[in-house]
Amino acid sequence: MVRDKVKLLGIWQSPFTLRVKLALSLKGVEYEYVEDDILNKSPMLLQYNPVYKKVPVLVHNGKPIVESLMIMEYVDEIWKDHPLLPEDPFEKARYRFWAKFVDDKFVPMIIRMLRITPDQKENAAKEAREILKTLESCLNPNKPFNGGQNLSFMDIAIVWVGYYAQMLEKMLHVILLDDENTPLLNMWFRYVLDLQVIKECLPPFDKLVAHYTDFHERHMTAH
Amino acid sequence: MVRDKVKLLGIWQSPFTLRVKLALSLKGVEYEYVEDDILNKSPMLLQYNPVYKKVPVLVHNGKPIVESLMIMEYVDEIWKDHPLLPEDPFEKARYRFWAKFVDDKFVPMIIRMLRITPDQKENAAKEAREILKTLESCLNPNKPFNGGQNLSFMDIAIVWVGYYAQMLEKMLHVILLDDENTPLLNMWFRYVLDLQVIKECLPPFDKLVAHYTDFHERHMTAH
Repeated sequence: MVRDKVKLLGIWQSPFTLRVKLALSLKGVEYEYVEDDILNKSPMLLQYNPVYKKVPVLVHNGKPIVESLMIMEYVDEIWKDHPLLPEDPFEKARYRFWAKFVDDKFVPMIIRMLRITPDQKENAAKEAREILKTLESCLNPNKPFNGGQNLSFMDIAIVWVGYYAQMLEKMLHVILLDDENTPLLNMWFRYVLDLQVIKECLPPFDKLVAHYTDFHERHMTAH
Repeated sequence: MVRDKVKLLGIWQSPFTLRVKLALSLKGVEYEYVEDDILNKSPMLLQYNPVYKKVPVLVHNGKPIVESLMIMEYVDEIWKDHPLLPEDPFEKARYRFWAKFVDDKFVPMIIRMLRITPDQKENAAKEAREILKTLESCLNPNKPFNGGQNLSFMDIAIVWVGYYAQMLEKMLHVILLDDENTPLLNMWFRYVLDLQVIKECLPPFDKLVAHYTDFHERHMTAH
């Protein structure tokens, strides 16, 4: 049997890179991690993802797969241990729905908050809390994870939201994870973010805050 | 065996509704089609898609599935005849990539062109031709369809682009499908759009042009 060659091109501060690291880690797949440079994209990145020129890229036996959610689907199809997606097509659609919800709603919110001026902060935080309130409805209060007893596609697609919300709270002195607003979601974030398998993949919190604080100071602008 | 109850909530002018109609039609699934009203959304739509409040929604035995690409995945998982997605995980990822490419790149372009002022037309058309040029690289010149001999997920995810590009050309008197720029893609659009199974699902061309011409006249605005 030919040994798989698995390489992940990523950047340490990216939640999309984190998703792929988590998927590979849960599956127990060994891989080479290659840190790219967002300001000076590598020839390898341009070769493997010429359309978007973005990480993460998973290179499996020389073939590139891009876009974090698609990479997670691919990883789940190739490596069968610890299934990430359920068999049931309706449940599968539900997982995909919430993963996309985060990308459609929370990602633009983060991008906006990283450029925000002080007078816009409270309004943006209020909108973010509303998104989180909607996201809360994806949880089943009777199960530790969306996949039941095991971390699933949906868990690793959305868990980073809690970590990056904590980062924004620290950077901007706003409240996003309000226990009055999203008690269940906050509890779930705390629980999952404290699991060893997750913690091992998270970027160091202080380094993340410092990185995005610097970004915010350089990009703060009215819009 | 309980007979499946399949209902599709859609709007006739939507390419996303078209995708689902094509998927169900290729699978030979009988369904009830319910036309929604974009200006006065039905209680059924708000019940079944409370987060996005958008069509298409597939209601299968009472359970709603939303987002056209996710519905297509669901349809392919439930009804096994005429597989839409390939078995091979890498090919599958490639199909999903190009379907998402169209949503990421061509959809915002259409939305922009539907509100465009005459002086912005040529620039927008040039950008659209660049997007189409990139899209052309998804085709295999040696196969009639992306799935080989059968219409696939990728074909039905992207074929509407050709039809709506023809509509924009007619409405705005611009050239999008330039045979110098995208000879293969244009030929492929002409071929696939002329297939009976596709034609039966397409909204009538003149009606579509009239509808979006009216929309354009009401929404034309600088931006």
